[in-house]
Amino acid sequence: MKIICSQTDLKTNLSLVSRAVPSRPTHPVLGNVLLVADADKNKINLTAFDLSLGIRTSFPAQIDEGGSITLPAKLFNDIVTRLPEGEIILSYDEDEMEDNPLVSILCLSGKFQLRGMKGEDFPELPTVEHEQPLMLPITSLSNGLQGSVFAASSDETKQVLTGIHLTRNHNSLEFAATDGHRLAVVQTEDEKQSEEDQDSEKSETVEDTEAIETETPEKINEDRNFEITIPARALRELEQILKMAKENESIALYVDEGQVVFELGEKHLTSRKLEGGYPNYNQLIPHQFSRTMVLDRKTLISSLERVAVLADQKNNLVKFNLDNTEQQVTLSVEAKELGNAKESIPAQITGEDLEIGFNIKYLMDGLKALPSNDIKMHFNEANQPIIINPLGGLKMTYLLMPVQITD
Amino acid sequence: MKIICSQTDLKTNLSLVSRAVPSRPTHPVLGNVLLVADADKNKINLTAFDLSLGIRTSFPAQIDEGGSITLPAKLFNDIVTRLPEGEIILSYDEDEMEDNPLVSILCLSGKFQLRGMKGEDFPELPTVEHEQPLMLPITSLSNGLQGSVFAASSDETKQVLTGIHLTRNHNSLEFAATDGHRLAVVQTEDEKQSEEDQDSEKSETVEDTEAIETETPEKINEDRNFEITIPARALRELEQILKMAKENESIALYVDEGQVVFELGEKHLTSRKLEGGYPNYNQLIPHQFSRTMVLDRKTLISSLERVAVLADQKNNLVKFNLDNTEQQVTLSVEAKELGNAKESIPAQITGEDLEIGFNIKYLMDGLKALPSNDIKMHFNEANQPIIINPLGGLKMTYLLMPVQITD
Repeated sequence: MKIICSQTDLKTNLSLVSRAVPSRPTHPVLGNVLLVADADKNKINLTAFDLSLGIRTSFPAQIDEGGSITLPAKLFNDIVTRLPEGEIILSYDEDEMEDNPLVSILCLSGKFQLRGMKGEDFPELPTVEHEQPLMLPITSLSNGLQGSVFAASSDETKQVLTGIHLTRNHNSLEFAATDGHRLAVVQTEDEKQSEEDQDSEKSETVEDTEAIETETPEKINEDRNFEITIPARALRELEQILKMAKENESIALYVDEGQVVFELGEKHLTSRKLEGGYPNYNQLIPHQFSRTMVLDRKTLISSLERVAVLADQKNNLVKFNLDNTEQQVTLSVEAKELGNAKESIPAQITGEDLEIGFNIKYLMDGLKALPSNDIKMHFNEANQPIIINPLGGLKMTYLLMPVQITD
Repeated sequence: MKIICSQTDLKTNLSLVSRAVPSRPTHPVLGNVLLVADADKNKINLTAFDLSLGIRTSFPAQIDEGGSITLPAKLFNDIVTRLPEGEIILSYDEDEMEDNPLVSILCLSGKFQLRGMKGEDFPELPTVEHEQPLMLPITSLSNGLQGSVFAASSDETKQVLTGIHLTRNHNSLEFAATDGHRLAVVQTEDEKQSEEDQDSEKSETVEDTEAIETETPEKINEDRNFEITIPARALRELEQILKMAKENESIALYVDEGQVVFELGEKHLTSRKLEGGYPNYNQLIPHQFSRTMVLDRKTLISSLERVAVLADQKNNLVKFNLDNTEQQVTLSVEAKELGNAKESIPAQITGEDLEIGFNIKYLMDGLKALPSNDIKMHFNEANQPIIINPLGGLKMTYLLMPVQITD
C-alpha cells in the first residue's frame, strides 16, 4: 500500500470516524481505525466500529498502490493532528505482510512508524443499501435530535430508554425520549418525503409483497411508516455529522431489521436498533389543564441558574409559587443550614394560585432544549405532571413530573 | 451592616480573593471570605486566608452601616457571579447578632440569604508594614516567576523544594526552582531599586542595628539583600494579580522573619516563608562544555510534541542525536510494540557527535518557559547535566539531567 494525501483531509476525516472508536474496546482491533486505499476510485476510506455504532467516510487521495490496514485510532489521530500541513505519504510493504505490519507515515518534518493490524481482521460494517432511502431534511433532523436526545436515560441497564424513539407517520417524523422522570417529544415535518411519496405510489404493489415477508412490529409498511429506537450515543455522533452539512441538504436514512444507516455525501453512520417495546408515551401526556403560565424562557433560565447554587447543596428542589393576582411566579429554594433564595418573574397566569416543586436539573434540561423565546407551561395539581411547550416554532412537548415539597 | 456596591466590583474582587480559599479547610471559617464594611473610608475589604497564603483586596462602596462578617466563599462567589449587573445591597441586622447570622443579598432579580459566621472568628492576616518596602518592577517579577515557578516540586513532602528561592543581591533579583530532576534560574534587574538604594544609604546606621538583632541566614542586611523561599502556590496566585497590573507599575515587597507581603494598589498577598536551607544550586551548574547546539525553540517544541505521542506510551524517553557533519539534530522515540518516530531539525552544532536521552516532559517544560526564539543547549557527555539558555532577552538557565538510554 502507498498513498499520498493532504494532512488536512486526513486529520478532518480521522477525527470524525474516531468518535465511533470505543474507549475500552472488547477486542483489540476495535480500538483501531480501518484504512482502505481504493486505487480504482483514488479514494481513502476510513471506518471505525464498536459493533453497535459505525462511522465510515472517504476522501480523495493519490493511491499509488491499493491495500487495507488498521491502525490504533488514538495514536494515529494524535500524530496526524500534530503533523505540519502539507502532503503525507502512508505506506507499508505488502510483500512482507505479517500480522502486525509497520506502517510508515512520512511527512515534511519526519517519519513515524505505527504497528497496525491486517485489514481483514476488521469486522464488516453492516449495510442496507438494497432499498430506496428516506430523504430527511437536515433541519428537521437537527431540530428533532436537539429537542429529544438530552432526555434519554444514560443508565445502560435501562435498555430501550437509552435510545430515541423515532416514529414516521405519513409526512411527519416524531422523536421521543424519556428516562422515567421526564419525557421530550418533538414533531417535525418531513417535507422532502411528500414529493417522493407521490412517486413511490407507483411501486406500491412491490412494497406490499415485502411487507408480508417482514411481519414485525418495526416493519416498514407500504407507506414507509416505521417505529424504531436508536441508541442516543449514535444520534449524538449523528448531530456532529449534521453540523458539517449545509442547511438545505438532506440526509438519507436506510432502515432494516437490525439497523439503521444515515448517509450524508461520503459520510455514513450505522447503528444497531434497540430491541424491545418502547413505552406508549402518548398515553402519559395530559391534554386538560386547570392552569397555564406564559413567560420568557431566558429570564426563567437565568433565575433558575442563580437559585440552583443553593439547590445544588441540598436536594435540587426548586419551589414555584404561581400568583394569579400579581401575575408573577416566585421561585424559591430553601437550604436550611446554608441559606435561601427567592426570585420573582412576571408571567401571564390563568387559573388558581399553585405551589409546586421541581427537580431543578430536569427542569433546566428541558428549558435549555426548548427553541422559542416565550414558553407556555401547563399545570393541573401539585402532584400531577406538567407540560411545557414553545410558543411558535418547533412542535415540542416537555413533560415533567413534579417533586413533592416536604418542609 | 448595610452596604450598597456594584455587582461588577464585588464579582471581580471576590473571585480574586477566593483563590486563597483552601479546597479542604482545616477549620470551617477558613472556607469563608471575610467582608469588612469600612464606614470611614466607604470601602469594602475582602480577605481569604488558608493560614499560609492570604489575599486581601478592597474597593469603594456606599457603606450605610459598617460591620464585619464572613460568608461561605464558594457559595457567595457562585451567587454573585450569576447576579445581573447593577446594584447589590448586602445587609444583616447587627442587633440580632447571633453566631451564624443570615446575610441578605438583595439585587434587581431577587433576594438571597446566606448564613455567615462572625467576622471576629476569622484569623488575622499577618502584616509587616513597619518597614520600607522593596519596589519591584512588574515585568521583572513576571519574567522571574514565569521562568521558574513551573520547575518547583509539587510533592508536598519535599518541603523547601515546593518553593521558589528568591535571592536579592544589590540590584539583581534571582529566582530559582528545582524538584531534583531539573533546575530553573532566572536573573532579573531590579531597576527601580537602584534609585532607592542611594536614598537608603543615609539610614544605613539604623539598619545596621537591626541586622545585629536578627542574625539569621535569611536576615535583611544593610544593603537589603536577602535569600528567601516562598511557596510556589502563593507565587502562582501572585502571577494572577500581576496580570491585572499595568506594565510600568511596581509592586511593593515586605519581607520579615516569618512571611512576605506583596502589595499592588489595594491588592495584598501575604505568604509564609518556607523554613530550611535551600540547596546551593549554583554549585550544580557546570560552566565548561564540550558541545553546544543553537536551534529554533518553537521548531524543537513542535517536533517534541509529535514524537511525544509515542513517548507517552512508554517511558517518556526521547533520544537526541547531534550530527556535526550534517549540522542537524535527530529526535527519536522507540515504543517497540507500538512503533517509532524520528524527526530531524537543522541546528548549529559544535563539538563531537553525541547521543543523549531526556525525559520529554521535563525538557518540554523548560523549552516552553524559555522566552527567546533561538536557544543554546550546552552538553558534555551523555551522562552529565545539560544547560539551556535563551539567546537574547532574559537571563535564564535551565539545567536538566539526562536519562540513561537502555535499548
